[in-house]
Formats: sequence, C-alpha cells, structure tokens
Amino acid sequence: MFTINQVQAAPLVVSRAHLAAAAPQAVVVNSGVANAATGEQGEADARATSEQAAALLGLAPQQVLVLSTGVIGVPLPMGKVTAGLERAADSLGPEGGEDAAEAIMTTDTRTKTSVARRPGFTVGGMAKGSGMIHPRLATMLAVVTTDYPLAEDRAHRLLREAVTSSFNRISVDGETSPNDAVILLANGASTAEADDHAFADALTEVCVDLARQIVADGEGASTIVEITVSGAADDDQAAAVASRIATSPLVKTAAFGRDANWGRILVAAGSAPWDGGFVSIDPARVLLLINDTTVFRRGMPTGVEPEMGDPVLRIDLDLGLGDGACTYLTSDLTYDYVKINAEYRS
Amino acid sequence: MFTINQVQAAPLVVSRAHLAAAAPQAVVVNSGVANAATGEQGEADARATSEQAAALLGLAPQQVLVLSTGVIGVPLPMGKVTAGLERAADSLGPEGGEDAAEAIMTTDTRTKTSVARRPGFTVGGMAKGSGMIHPRLATMLAVVTTDYPLAEDRAHRLLREAVTSSFNRISVDGETSPNDAVILLANGASTAEADDHAFADALTEVCVDLARQIVADGEGASTIVEITVSGAADDDQAAAVASRIATSPLVKTAAFGRDANWGRILVAAGSAPWDGGFVSIDPARVLLLINDTTVFRRGMPTGVEPEMGDPVLRIDLDLGLGDGACTYLTSDLTYDYVKINAEYRS
Repeated sequence: MFTINQVQAAPLVVSRAHLAAAAPQAVVVNSGVANAATGEQGEADARATSEQAAALLGLAPQQVLVLSTGVIGVPLPMGKVTAGLERAADSLGPEGGEDAAEAIMTTDTRTKTSVARRPGFTVGGMAKGSGMIHPRLATMLAVVTTDYPLAEDRAHRLLREAVTSSFNRISVDGETSPNDAVILLANGASTAEADDHAFADALTEVCVDLARQIVADGEGASTIVEITVSGAADDDQAAAVASRIATSPLVKTAAFGRDANWGRILVAAGSAPWDGGFVSIDPARVLLLINDTTVFRRGMPTGVEPEMGDPVLRIDLDLGLGDGACTYLTSDLTYDYVKINAEYRS
Repeated sequence: MFTINQVQAAPLVVSRAHLAAAAPQAVVVNSGVANAATGEQGEADARATSEQAAALLGLAPQQVLVLSTGVIGVPLPMGKVTAGLERAADSLGPEGGEDAAEAIMTTDTRTKTSVARRPGFTVGGMAKGSGMIHPRLATMLAVVTTDYPLAEDRAHRLLREAVTSSFNRISVDGETSPNDAVILLANGASTAEADDHAFADALTEVCVDLARQIVADGEGASTIVEITVSGAADDDQAAAVASRIATSPLVKTAAFGRDANWGRILVAAGSAPWDGGFVSIDPARVLLLINDTTVFRRGMPTGVEPEMGDPVLRIDLDLGLGDGACTYLTSDLTYDYVKINAEYRS
C-alpha cells in the first residue's frame, strides 16, 4: 500500500511498476533523502538502486522494491547508496532485523518493531515515522514479513484491512508524506495449514502495535491521545470526527498542557468535514468523557474535573445518533514539535 | 453571517432568532466567557442580556444582537454583565469605537479597526480574533457599520461576497469557533445616492483589512504567510489547495524557522482534500515561487535559494492546469502558539 499524496516520490513510482511485474523478494530502504520532487533523475536513481541491489542478490531488478525517507527535493547521493548496498548485502542475515529498523530512522528517536507468533507461523514488522503522519494511506514506511502460506490474491485485501484499523487511524500532524508505504512480504516457508483468520489477526496485531509506536514517538510528543468516537451515524462519520479531533491544534496543545479542555474537543467535533459540509452533531445528545470522567452530558457541562497527568489521555465521545464508531490515536502538539520542524529541513 | 460549526454558542442561537424578527439596532459583545456549550441556561442568559440592553436603550429585545467570546462551557456571570451593560449604555458616544474594539479582545494583543471613506458614505469596522481562526464561515467577531443607504434585501449578499474574499480566506490554526459572527449594521444616514458597486468595494476593503489584522495578530504569530494558488481547474480547487497549505503544520513551522522549505509546500498541495479524494496535481506542470524566486519548475527543483527573513512570506503556486485562483493568508506556527494554548483555557 502506497501514499495517496498527489506528489509521489520516485521510489514509489518505480516500486509500483516492479510490483506489477514480479513478486518482490527484497526491499531497499534509505533514510536521509526522500528522493521526492526530483523529476526524471530521481526515477533513474531509484531504478539504478534496484538494479544494483538485484545484481548483488542474484535477483531481477523487478523483484526489488525501493523506499526512501528524508529531505524532499534533494537528489539521491548514488555514491553513498552504492557503497551502502554492498555493505548491506554482505551483512544480510536472520539476526539483522534490529539493525535494519535502526538504519531506516530519520527524526525517529527509537526503533519500531513488532512480532506476533501464532501456531505454525510468525508475523514480524518494522516501521519508521514520527512526522508527516496522517492516514488515508499507509502513512510512513513499514515492512512486514511472514512465513505464513499466504495466497497471493489474498495479500492486498488482508493488508488493506489491517492498515485501515492501524496506520490509517493515527495522526501526528495531519501531514501526508509522498514516500509512505507499507510492504508485506510472505515467503510461504511455514508448513502450517492456511488459516487466513488467524493470519489477519496476527497481521493486524503487528500493524496496530507499530502504529502505536509511531504515535508514541511522534515528533516532540509528550503524551498519546486515545480518541474513541461512538454513536455516530456510521463508521465513516465517526472516523471523520475522530480525525478532526486528532488534528485539532487546540486539542493537541491542551493535551500538552494536561488541560482537560473538553470545550475544544466538542468544538473540534462540531467542525468535522463531511460530504462538502460537516458531520451532523446535536450537542443535546452528546456524552463526553475524559479519562473515564463524564465532563459533558446532553448539552450541559457536568462541572466535574477529570484526573489528568497520565502519559495517556483518553477521550470518549458518544454522539448519541447511531452505531458508528472509530478509535484513533494522536500525539500532543508541543514546543519540541515546533523546534524539530522549524530547525530541521525535512 | 454566523459560524457553521455544528456546536452553536447560545448568543448566536438568540441573535439568529432576533435577526429573523427585527432589524438590529444594537450589538452587545462580551469577552472572557463564550457562553457556548452551556445548554438552556446559556440561552436564557443571552436572552436576558438582550432584554437588559434593550431596556437601557429604549429598544425591543429583538432589536439587540448578542455576541460572546472567551472560555467555552462556563456560565455567563450575569451580575458582571448587568453592571457592564449599565456602564456601557452610559458611555455610548460617537468617539467610543476604539474603547469598544479594546473591550472585545481576548487573546488579541491589539485592537483591530478599519475604515473606508467614499464620497457621501463611510464603512467602519472592528473585529477580534487571534485563535480558533479558520474559514468556511465568518471566523471571529466583527461588527461593521455604515451610513450607506443599503437596501435591506442586498445586505446579506454583499456581506457574503465581502466575507468570502476576506474572513473566509484566512487561517491561524484551522479551528472553527462556535461563536464566530460578522454583523453589518447600516443606518442609512448618508444622503448620497446609492451605488452598490462603490459600497461593495468599501465593504470588502474594510473586511480584507480586518482579516489581515487578525492574521497578523494570530496567536504567537511572527510572520504573515501570503499564499496565492493559480492555474487550478477552478477557484474552489485553488481555495482547497491554498487552505491545505495554510493549515499545514510543517509549512507553518518552516515559516517560523524562515526556511524556504518548498518541498513541504508541494507535498501539502498534493494532499488537499477534494470531493472525497484529493485535488489533482501534476508535479510536471507545477511552478512554485517563494518570495518571487522560482524554486520548483516542471517537476524539478531549480536549486535557487530565495531570500528569507522578511516578516511576510510570499508563496505563489501555479498548478498549470486551468484558470482557478485563490489568495489566502495565514500565520506561522511558533513556540508562542503552543504556549498560549497549552497554558490558557479557551
């Protein structure tokens, strides 16, 4: 799954073409330079990267996917890439996962890996991402591998379902990168009998875990905000409301200030875009809880102050209109987010 | 014109009803408490405010509009309001405009007034607002008065047109207040012959001036960002792209850092929501200028660094697809925005 930003980085253009031509056997990831907005030279560089990796690994170039992350608009330093590919190919091994997870970091402060073991098979994943994180796509780089005997025609659907409830339900700053991708590789090495339900469960577990790690390591983040919207007319409207709350600078600065500012949450919910207008909300039906304390019920504040100060802030908003629901994660908006992005060219 | 947030403050509910019943003769504005999310008591308080003001001024309650700005979810302190109304009524006078503009401030650091003089008539206005500023409505409080002989059935249309190109083309933080309103009062005192074109021009001038003052005084703002999008398929798509750029935390932190980070601008443009998807953009047709220096042309960076450091940052983005255009103003995202909103309950 790739970003849906209208500006697509060169490696994604090349990787899409390769995916259409062959089953991928290897993924090359570089950090530091995104190879986005680099024109034809950028595509040539991405293609050269896959060709060099293919030669080193005895593969066809189409069997190699290429991902990049870092500064936009700067050409890929091919000398460094070539040298790095040779060293990386030499040191490939079953214990190399943690090294790879570290190598793909940019503004990340820690590696993000996850594993789910099930009888007969395993799903493992790594991800990078802490800024330009917002859904409606796979919003960062993630590579998930498994030995599960996955039928090729089921792979995309199962991945899409797992991504919908994980990477597509997080936001750090409402931004959508031109480089985002989630890659799932299944080598079929397991001799277990296929059980797609069990696999989907393990895949979702890994994606949800990685997504939460991305939010926890969100640029400048001091707290995770867990937003649950229920009682919406349908799930999509619940997601629209949750997304609006998750991207509200006023909600996110209040979270940073450990201020149970329910008014800002309610007001953000009241301006969630939907179908050219807004999601319909009737304050008289709304129930709002912060950290399990009811702060607003049927049009009126309760006057009760919730406990604050935990590193996790829980917001539960019941619109009282239907059965639609959505859970969403975001981080707070802090001095450090401003510092990182005012001083770092990304 | 009133906010389109689904959560409507009590004074706006009361003012709408009054507007439907009578031509307004007076506007009462209080700051400090927004009287939003306050249920039936809030509406009763807003109604009581208009009744008391009407009694003091010899008007019917329906001739009085009520606006509030400040903290959400707190009841209006009616003792203070009553005392304030008496003092305000006593000190009404033709020189009181600046006092009124100061009295309605909350997180504003300076008053916002504007006047446009034309042969035979004048348009004057005041506004408040520095946070929770985003369009698709009148996004703050503004009261505009004129002695122009305005026909009643033309007032709303002319105001809507002026607001579209002024208050609806600014964003401080992408937030939409439940209290926002723009009120236009015309007393017909001028004996000039009606010339609606000249009036519309003067009205737009005042609204554009007030809107720019709001952005310049945006919470924590250190710079104004002037965004012009041209070459879009139509004006609405140009506005969608401009709005996405104006609300991008990465563009706004780069502006604060005086970083000519054109990659972030391009990427924000590439994720402008439109009709359930995104505005179509072809990077190969894009021309992007920062402070009049071309930084990206037809899919490729030019490698030229623009001059930065001015208190105004100009972004000109030509999508190369059609004739649609839009001009938009925003402020930067700074440490002080975070400070104001992490430490102030609004």
